[in-house]
Amino acid sequence: MTETVDCRTAAARLRGADKVLILCHKNPDGDTVGSAGALCKALQSLGRTAAVLCSDPIPKMYDYMNIATFDGSFTPAFVVAVDVASIQLFGEKNNVQDYAAHVQLCIDHHSSNSGYAYETLVDGTASATCELLVELLDELAVPITPEIAACLYTGIATDTGCFRFASTSARTHKAAARVIEAGADVEMLNARLFESRSHGRMEAERMAMESLEYYFHDRCALIFLTWDEISGCGVAGAELEDLTSLPRSIEGVEVGLTLRQQKDGSFKISVRTSGEIDACAIARRLGGGGHSRAAGCEISGNLDNAKHAILEEVRKELERHDLAKSEPTELQG
Amino acid sequence: MTETVDCRTAAARLRGADKVLILCHKNPDGDTVGSAGALCKALQSLGRTAAVLCSDPIPKMYDYMNIATFDGSFTPAFVVAVDVASIQLFGEKNNVQDYAAHVQLCIDHHSSNSGYAYETLVDGTASATCELLVELLDELAVPITPEIAACLYTGIATDTGCFRFASTSARTHKAAARVIEAGADVEMLNARLFESRSHGRMEAERMAMESLEYYFHDRCALIFLTWDEISGCGVAGAELEDLTSLPRSIEGVEVGLTLRQQKDGSFKISVRTSGEIDACAIARRLGGGGHSRAAGCEISGNLDNAKHAILEEVRKELERHDLAKSEPTELQG
Repeated sequence: MTETVDCRTAAARLRGADKVLILCHKNPDGDTVGSAGALCKALQSLGRTAAVLCSDPIPKMYDYMNIATFDGSFTPAFVVAVDVASIQLFGEKNNVQDYAAHVQLCIDHHSSNSGYAYETLVDGTASATCELLVELLDELAVPITPEIAACLYTGIATDTGCFRFASTSARTHKAAARVIEAGADVEMLNARLFESRSHGRMEAERMAMESLEYYFHDRCALIFLTWDEISGCGVAGAELEDLTSLPRSIEGVEVGLTLRQQKDGSFKISVRTSGEIDACAIARRLGGGGHSRAAGCEISGNLDNAKHAILEEVRKELERHDLAKSEPTELQG
Repeated sequence: MTETVDCRTAAARLRGADKVLILCHKNPDGDTVGSAGALCKALQSLGRTAAVLCSDPIPKMYDYMNIATFDGSFTPAFVVAVDVASIQLFGEKNNVQDYAAHVQLCIDHHSSNSGYAYETLVDGTASATCELLVELLDELAVPITPEIAACLYTGIATDTGCFRFASTSARTHKAAARVIEAGADVEMLNARLFESRSHGRMEAERMAMESLEYYFHDRCALIFLTWDEISGCGVAGAELEDLTSLPRSIEGVEVGLTLRQQKDGSFKISVRTSGEIDACAIARRLGGGGHSRAAGCEISGNLDNAKHAILEEVRKELERHDLAKSEPTELQG
């Protein structure tokens, strides 16, 4: 079992360390890359040798962070993981597994963190690991340069959907104010992070909107993309991730469903709910899981089967919810 | 000419006032409504009589603010305008013009404010009038209740596109942190403000994406909606306003054009640019105007004429820009 440490202890460990290897999670997002970049630059500013290792390539959209990736030029003496909730999330490539079992310190904002590291600094109330790092760098007494600020802003802004998600708190905004004052170029960063959809992504979005269907008196909205459509657009899975918020964003919709066909023909289904409708309950009965407002599952078979199966679970959950409220249920397909 | 006042003087005027009428601008948005609501509640908490007047109805989506609209039950003795940059913007309905010429105090964040009021508190560096009001209420020593906080958050979040626009500063995030600590329910507010597209709006968005065309080696993207399409969706003009950011949000696109047909058949054209391409220069040559990155104009005639005319101006501006950079111009329709 891991030892849980506070910010001060984590800072002390980092201050005492050198030849630091910083690990990201696979399919890296803005928070894991931003956290790694900020910590790496901070340690370098303290005169330490540090570099970043990830199972997958760092997406090109994050090039502005100038991440120092590990090239084997030093033998790591201290391994830190950032934003990695469990050991499975390290991935298998780039020899990451050589280090994944020996993480000295894990810094994370997932309260579900499995405790695989010797010591863990975890704060589930932080909207992003980068939010936590703003406080850790203060504790380390490292000045936040514009480059470090850009990394930290990236993590905070991407993990909160640009301050839109429910995880956004007063502390999140204070951290954002802090890094903007330290020189993060909000205009450039927001343009790159939130206003730069590829042509393929636009085409996928168009087709998804084309597929929009309403069910249960418009309380449920569903979009789908077949594998042919997805591969035809030439977009990666991660680029389509935020499409899953589209059906739920329609007025009056309590359950938003996104069906994306995989290469093997099966459907990956994302369930997004509002109010008291339990997304996890819907996904769990089909072998999936997740959180109360965002969950997912996979169903094999053709599109009609997949739709039928998930809509049946949505119907049950809506009925359960209406019964609990003692209101008459009025459902139709 | 108006007298420019600072926050302290504005607070002193408000403290000395009673029977206060607060005026919004026509086609009210989140910032003018939020500012009016926050100021009205603040004055009421100081025991003053206060109410809000707007030429147009307050949109239903802002119902949660519980705006006290003016019902003629008192004779206004002090008139305040919030977020209204010029006297034309008051509108003509609801007897607003009875008061528009006698505004004692104007509170605004438009540096272009025409100075129509006796005294003006204006700060063009504030992202929203509500950002300015956070500081003014502190000066007034009015505790920010959760209701006032909801009004202030609404103005700040809507005028910055939820902290995405270039106007967002460290001060903006500090103001947001402040009102969240004071009880603004970010989850509820963001859901209402940013995740509630009507069915008609979705349909209009789908059709706009369907119309997407690229020009000049994909440096320009264009979408259009005919009057039949717009009226078929049953959406108001304001609901389509943020569609204008869609074409510019595509990777590599420097000029985004949105053509919306009006009832009389003419086309309202929105020009959005990035980098150094001048949107105003493009619109101005067709009789329009605006800012360097967002401008507009109107063209009568059919769709083909309108497209041809605006694309010709885009071509000229791209060529001018490329020449200025001494780079070879390579354009094609």
